[in-house]
Amino acid sequence: MPARVSIDVRERGGDERTGRHFVDIASFGSVSRADSTPHEPANPMGDTFDRVDTLRDDPRDDIPMAHRMQRFVEALQIRIVKKLESFEGDTSFRLDNWERDGGGGGLTAVIENGDVWEKGGVNTSAVHGDLPDRMVEAFGVEKKPFFATGLSLVIHPRNPHVPTVHANFRYFALGDDLMNPDDQWFGGGADLTPYYPHLEDARHFHRVWKEVCDRHDAVADYDAFKTECDDYFYLPHREEARGVGGIFYDYLRDDPEGTFFFSREAGRRFLRSYVPIVERRLGTDYGERERHFQLVRRGRYVEFNLLFDRGTKFGIETRGRTESILMSLPPHVEWRYDYTPEAGTPESRAMWFLTPRDWLDLDESDVPEG
Amino acid sequence: MPARVSIDVRERGGDERTGRHFVDIASFGSVSRADSTPHEPANPMGDTFDRVDTLRDDPRDDIPMAHRMQRFVEALQIRIVKKLESFEGDTSFRLDNWERDGGGGGLTAVIENGDVWEKGGVNTSAVHGDLPDRMVEAFGVEKKPFFATGLSLVIHPRNPHVPTVHANFRYFALGDDLMNPDDQWFGGGADLTPYYPHLEDARHFHRVWKEVCDRHDAVADYDAFKTECDDYFYLPHREEARGVGGIFYDYLRDDPEGTFFFSREAGRRFLRSYVPIVERRLGTDYGERERHFQLVRRGRYVEFNLLFDRGTKFGIETRGRTESILMSLPPHVEWRYDYTPEAGTPESRAMWFLTPRDWLDLDESDVPEG
Repeated sequence: MPARVSIDVRERGGDERTGRHFVDIASFGSVSRADSTPHEPANPMGDTFDRVDTLRDDPRDDIPMAHRMQRFVEALQIRIVKKLESFEGDTSFRLDNWERDGGGGGLTAVIENGDVWEKGGVNTSAVHGDLPDRMVEAFGVEKKPFFATGLSLVIHPRNPHVPTVHANFRYFALGDDLMNPDDQWFGGGADLTPYYPHLEDARHFHRVWKEVCDRHDAVADYDAFKTECDDYFYLPHREEARGVGGIFYDYLRDDPEGTFFFSREAGRRFLRSYVPIVERRLGTDYGERERHFQLVRRGRYVEFNLLFDRGTKFGIETRGRTESILMSLPPHVEWRYDYTPEAGTPESRAMWFLTPRDWLDLDESDVPEG
Repeated sequence: MPARVSIDVRERGGDERTGRHFVDIASFGSVSRADSTPHEPANPMGDTFDRVDTLRDDPRDDIPMAHRMQRFVEALQIRIVKKLESFEGDTSFRLDNWERDGGGGGLTAVIENGDVWEKGGVNTSAVHGDLPDRMVEAFGVEKKPFFATGLSLVIHPRNPHVPTVHANFRYFALGDDLMNPDDQWFGGGADLTPYYPHLEDARHFHRVWKEVCDRHDAVADYDAFKTECDDYFYLPHREEARGVGGIFYDYLRDDPEGTFFFSREAGRRFLRSYVPIVERRLGTDYGERERHFQLVRRGRYVEFNLLFDRGTKFGIETRGRTESILMSLPPHVEWRYDYTPEAGTPESRAMWFLTPRDWLDLDESDVPEG
């Protein structure tokens, strides 16, 4: 797979802010920089991403967790963007580097109108400054310096047989000294939103996440994270889950080192959780009927993101970068009044999947007929 | 214009609830009932809507304001539905009568896929019961019986040259005795959302509402209501108005009788505020470019309704009827990443209209070139 990260830099991110106990490295902004030169002054290990990753994996106690997490999500962003681009012919991701007024910035990577990806965004950001009032209120803490970094992605494939997917991996720290933050925690997760669901796909997705959690069982609990995901990605006004779930976790603060390792492995498993499903479903033909159903179901996705998603609401309320926050919205959407699929159709069968279930305990005999 | 209100009744509304000091008349549910028979046992004045309206206009002190307002919005709904249907060939409104678990119900009138109206809803409801906790909190009152009735409409035309419009007229009462409520207030308004705006249209729309307000200046203040509309229908994350505004008012409680007369006249002026604009723009040709712009702009409409609209949020939070609340969402919508119209195009000119302005003080020389 050729390295083919296309760059359309709108703004360059900030530079080193060593006085703030961390370096803002959310600002790689050119092909040469992203493709061959690591952000840090020297990298004796070589110039491939894998090697950079290896270097970054070495447990470090001389740089803050904030910094390690930021490096990780930025490397992960490139890896995911490249893999997704490998599905496309001429269409590539556009990269927008942006700065935040209060401090920090991010890199928004968006693909639109691809053959496979109708729209997708893979964003990283690393922002810092004084905690906005809205966050002071939400966290119930005093106004103090904060640092937040994370990767967030949403992928809307064109083919209705390929599920939409969302994932994010986040870190938050409070206090003056990022080497010894007053408080710090990790959050994240991944969830799958199929249009024409298959138990096989739901099971694959959940199996990957269960394996990651099980390998880090001191900090991660698949059953609890799955339940949190089911509870969170739920549309009460539709009495429907957003999709077949996955894992969701927040405020993991007890063991930062262990949670970082878990987050890192979870992030790296993302492609393994999703790509096999894409490869399995991409060849399935579809017509207007499937497309229509997909657009109506995407309406539910919009409803969730704008009515309920905490990240979206929070981002909008704190005056985050609108285009990065709303890049999660699907490209084409339909709302029909009182749409209900006819009984016995594949569309009505899909609804069975929109009730939280223990997919890993089910087999095909549990799935209702089409 | 033939009477052509098509009926597709899902559920019949409740019947008389005389023990509650009012009659639930939100439940007219058949052609014969809606088209020829008034809701009340006897109507000596005849069987046309105009006559029913005339009857309903007589100042009455023997029935509660709640009841008078409900009758008014239900008659207005039929009038508006009929007028809108007169633009269509084969497509007509579908009427859904629904009941609310806690008391009362409504009539949702929806048109989809018409030649002129791609999607539109004209809803009335009259609900009552014990104030839901969410409202107790919002109004800062004790839990007591409430009654609410109103009409709410949103029309999404197919032709991008014809503006989308929204209006609502509402009444709320608190207390055991609707003849002497502990508190009661009116709210409402109308706002216009053009895709390819014309000053002439904005001026026409505002002129109609200013005239109504001026005729009821003891209770209605156009300047104040216009400013409230501008403030309310604003998307802070886009730094854009939803459209060219109109009027918006709420909690008008000082002079119920005078405010009812104002609300009634405002409701009746709705068609006059909108239909001449439709007639003026309906013949304008459009192609893919205009259609695309319309779909992207409709995305903003969705963002406003789901992120900010109090009625939507409130309805969803209090578990109102989802399909009636969300019938305001446009039929087809697009989100493109970081969409910005090219300078000097009609699409970029449209943006000039999305800053609140005193349209009635402007003339064509104030409008920037296309």
